[in-house]
Amino acid sequence: MFLGIDDEKFLRQEKIPMTKREIRILTLVLANVNDAEIIVDIGAGTGSLSIEAALFSPDSNIFAIEKNPDAVELLKQNIQKFSVDNITVLQDEASKALKNFSAIDVAIIGGSGGKLEKILDIVDEKLKIGGHISANFISIQNLSTCLDWLKRRENYHYDAIQVQINRLKKIGHYDIAQANNPIYILTAKKKE
Amino acid sequence: MFLGIDDEKFLRQEKIPMTKREIRILTLVLANVNDAEIIVDIGAGTGSLSIEAALFSPDSNIFAIEKNPDAVELLKQNIQKFSVDNITVLQDEASKALKNFSAIDVAIIGGSGGKLEKILDIVDEKLKIGGHISANFISIQNLSTCLDWLKRRENYHYDAIQVQINRLKKIGHYDIAQANNPIYILTAKKKE
Amino acid sequence: MFLGIDDEKFLRQEKIPMTKREIRILTLVLANVNDAEIIVDIGAGTGSLSIEAALFSPDSNIFAIEKNPDAVELLKQNIQKFSVDNITVLQDEASKALKNFSAIDVAIIGGSGGKLEKILDIVDEKLKIGGHISANFISIQNLSTCLDWLKRRENYHYDAIQVQINRLKKIGHYDIAQANNPIYILTAKKKE
Amino acid sequence: MFLGIDDEKFLRQEKIPMTKREIRILTLVLANVNDAEIIVDIGAGTGSLSIEAALFSPDSNIFAIEKNPDAVELLKQNIQKFSVDNITVLQDEASKALKNFSAIDVAIIGGSGGKLEKILDIVDEKLKIGGHISANFISIQNLSTCLDWLKRRENYHYDAIQVQINRLKKIGHYDIAQANNPIYILTAKKKE
Repeated sequence: MFLGIDDEKFLRQEKIPMTKREIRILTLVLANVNDAEIIVDIGAGTGSLSIEAALFSPDSNIFAIEKNPDAVELLKQNIQKFSVDNITVLQDEASKALKNFSAIDVAIIGGSGGKLEKILDIVDEKLKIGGHISANFISIQNLSTCLDWLKRRENYHYDAIQVQINRLKKIGHYDIAQANNPIYILTAKKKE
Repeated sequence: MFLGIDDEKFLRQEKIPMTKREIRILTLVLANVNDAEIIVDIGAGTGSLSIEAALFSPDSNIFAIEKNPDAVELLKQNIQKFSVDNITVLQDEASKALKNFSAIDVAIIGGSGGKLEKILDIVDEKLKIGGHISANFISIQNLSTCLDWLKRRENYHYDAIQVQINRLKKIGHYDIAQANNPIYILTAKKKE
Repeated sequence: MFLGIDDEKFLRQEKIPMTKREIRILTLVLANVNDAEIIVDIGAGTGSLSIEAALFSPDSNIFAIEKNPDAVELLKQNIQKFSVDNITVLQDEASKALKNFSAIDVAIIGGSGGKLEKILDIVDEKLKIGGHISANFISIQNLSTCLDWLKRRENYHYDAIQVQINRLKKIGHYDIAQANNPIYILTAKKKE
Repeated sequence: MFLGIDDEKFLRQEKIPMTKREIRILTLVLANVNDAEIIVDIGAGTGSLSIEAALFSPDSNIFAIEKNPDAVELLKQNIQKFSVDNITVLQDEASKALKNFSAIDVAIIGGSGGKLEKILDIVDEKLKIGGHISANFISIQNLSTCLDWLKRRENYHYDAIQVQINRLKKIGHYDIAQANNPIYILTAKKKE
């Protein structure tokens, strides 16, 4: 079991987003990933969340869903680099890829390509009772859409935090705070 | 293995500080606690970091050091409540309690009672090569003292972040951000 | 001309919200209040924004709109305390009070009592070209509603920031950061 | 009188730092700049604080101190661009340039070139009773040095805040928070 991979260890590409270390740690822990059998990572991008989940919870089966072919290529390279064998890559639209699932424990939503509500609807159909949705939002619109979606349902308990990380960078004798962009981490648990 | 205890599950007392959930998670993961044999938790307070560490890393031996008798009492009650058997409570000044150790893997510094430099000096004597110091600071003075201490040494690699968590609180139909006080988490690894 | 009243100088009441000093300063400066003839302060509450505006821009006429009778009482006491003579208090629903205006330079929206969209619609009717809407949001829902409203229009240029202030509190020899809740400040300028 | 210049209006150069709009506004307002006769801007850099002060307080005399010749050149170009006539540029080490002053109302410390304590000592000699020191810090070390300096004196009342501004950037239909680096703004008033 391992948690907390250095960001530098991932292969990266300029236009493909990557969830940063502290956000990965919090997202996966708050979603109870280590108890999960089936984890889907929607909008897997660089694959950092999938790979972190694969190492943190080696008995889970993780399905990394990503439609962008460049990102899929990068994702596969990262999977190889970290030698994890519990990730399956699905190159498809999230709404299509999710159709084949029957019982998801954790759905991680990193990217939604403008179709958040549709994705939430299909995740909801497939998510086990007691399962978790864990979503990272950088836009006010997607955060707001997800909050609205949850408020229309009575069978989810959710908790949302905004996380801002400032890293002290060493410049000569000085330590100077450098801001990461803030992220909203929303965790919703499905109730009976 | 478990990580991410709800804050509400700990028994608390008004004047005894408690490290909050997200800060506990990041502190323990960034310090590589799950690989550690011997962990000391200096200024253990409510015991939340010790107990979180005990569940996250069940094979570790955790020594919770706390001088305040009220905090020791509370700490013991929390240990009992969580039924963990890998925590030993040491009721003493940190500098005295640490004298008996020979090889520490992780030293967590939650509170230092105004004696940070002295504590760092003795931790340094006892820390294994490859071991971690993980400190949470709420004051500029202690953060600055620790950075100075590290800069005078060449055998530590450190990384420091400031973490600010805003929790969305549900008030009627609204979700309103409520700020936690920001914390600096400093992690230092001892090199050869 | 004066800007930057100490928070402690305002008379306050527990359930009536007050915009804090740094937020008042930024809100008023970013809205170009000092060039305005007619300013409306919607949901004036304690009156801190109205009074700050009255001192910052003594030639402006400020209309403080507030429906809650307790807040109106407090607001009037604060106006008297600061001896400003360019504030008129209107005790009414915002949407009604605004009907009598013809040419507003700056509309400050502190509180909207669940009727933000309706208030924006009527403000839009009354706002001069070149005039500013300046809104403070603590909820994701109101921020999101306002962003949606602006995106449906082409004649507004807007800029939004989230402001987080941590104040260093002196505790013994230490300076310890205490977080204020973060606020979104949105400023929109009406174009031709 | 004007306050709140757009950042884009300043001529800039890559390696010369510039204080951002919201930080300029808060720094100048919290230092009571509009009541000041004599203002010194130490480490003036791009000149954004000096020029903002010159427009905000047209009756003040502002002395922009900067030793770096490239920054001085840029500073002069910006002064010309904004057509302000109440700034005098002093190209020298701060400690030397300050020797000729007798009664300073506001000393703004933007940059200190590693000599903060020496600068504070000479500012203290020249500052009027009732005058303000206003300093912006990005490093923990300078913040800590300044706090220590203030704690050794009894004739200063100080207030320090950390300001974090996240600007919502429009990307397609979305508004996405982009973080500015956090800044500490410390304001100290000299008492009898």
